Amino acid sequence: MTDDAPHDENARHAEKMKKIKAARDRMMATKTEEKGLIIVHTGPGKGKSSSGFGMILRCIAHGMPCAVVQFIKGNWITGEAEMIRTRFADECRFFVSGEGFTWETQDKQRDIAAAQRGWEIAKAQIRDPEIRFVLLDEINIALRYDYLDIDEVVDFLLHEKPAMTHVCLTGRNAKPELIEAADLVTEMTLIKHPFREGVKAQKGVEF
Amino acid sequence: MTDDAPHDENARHAEKMKKIKAARDRMMATKTEEKGLIIVHTGPGKGKSSSGFGMILRCIAHGMPCAVVQFIKGNWITGEAEMIRTRFADECRFFVSGEGFTWETQDKQRDIAAAQRGWEIAKAQIRDPEIRFVLLDEINIALRYDYLDIDEVVDFLLHEKPAMTHVCLTGRNAKPELIEAADLVTEMTLIKHPFREGVKAQKGVEF
Repeated sequence: MTDDAPHDENARHAEKMKKIKAARDRMMATKTEEKGLIIVHTGPGKGKSSSGFGMILRCIAHGMPCAVVQFIKGNWITGEAEMIRTRFADECRFFVSGEGFTWETQDKQRDIAAAQRGWEIAKAQIRDPEIRFVLLDEINIALRYDYLDIDEVVDFLLHEKPAMTHVCLTGRNAKPELIEAADLVTEMTLIKHPFREGVKAQKGVEF
Repeated sequence: MTDDAPHDENARHAEKMKKIKAARDRMMATKTEEKGLIIVHTGPGKGKSSSGFGMILRCIAHGMPCAVVQFIKGNWITGEAEMIRTRFADECRFFVSGEGFTWETQDKQRDIAAAQRGWEIAKAQIRDPEIRFVLLDEINIALRYDYLDIDEVVDFLLHEKPAMTHVCLTGRNAKPELIEAADLVTEMTLIKHPFREGVKAQKGVEF
């Protein structure tokens, strides 16, 4: 009976999906540990900061107090930073360290001092037992230029971070020491970018 | 005079940064076009949906009305979805299409019908001249299983999307036709994931 054909296909599909679900459920049942993660978003593609801020949004939604420290990007007022500052001040602490990318300030000593101030704030936020998630936005740029000592940062994250606190570090060119220490690392790879076609940075997309 | 050494280094740094800034300013001056972008977040790494929601946060901050259509992921209540629904209902429209990943429903015809309903909603939101940014979260999964016709979706984005509206499509395994049509494509690459070490999905990080 040809009328059975779609029915048969549905039955086969259901059977296949049932097996996938069973395998997935078995796999997920082995994942029982909870711990505070060291999360790194790096690579030349987009989404490193915006997915960090997406996680902040998740934490706020779940009632988890959180903190953001923005390194380097200081004078670039992004929409999400403004949003956190104006609408979520009670749920997420917000700090800015630095005054724009280093080619904007043209003053290395000032950049180093700003990065160091940012790191002191970061340590205090991470140590605070109230805070469950800390976003260190663009800290990889400060680490890359050695404005912060990578060994000190990694040592702090591994040995002084409270066990259940998540810390997310963003920015291009994450140092190998940080990647080695991290639990969850994502590289954002650029496949296509409209700058190449002469399109400028636009609201909502780039900032 | 040895005391001049740090001063000299500062001067060299300032000179170098001045040149970088000038080159960057010249480059950015050539980027003058504004247009609504077709944005794709794909790849097996994290951050595809969360950076899409980060962009939504940016749009809300800039006063740009926006819309989210969630495909497939229906019964997985994420923090950011809950946040948009409860706190930003006036600024961002929110729609759910589907009832969970396909291995949860085990019913292909129901999944196809849900994907089609989601696409009808998506088209209406994209066509709406009030809406400046539309996030089609996890639509790539529906496209991958051919629950939606890739040619129809690409044709609509290229020829019926209003010129200034941004559309962001997320999910693994983006089809080549979509990547070809897109303006801005980022692949999230998995470098390290804590599931491998037995750590379960956690609030704020995974959902």
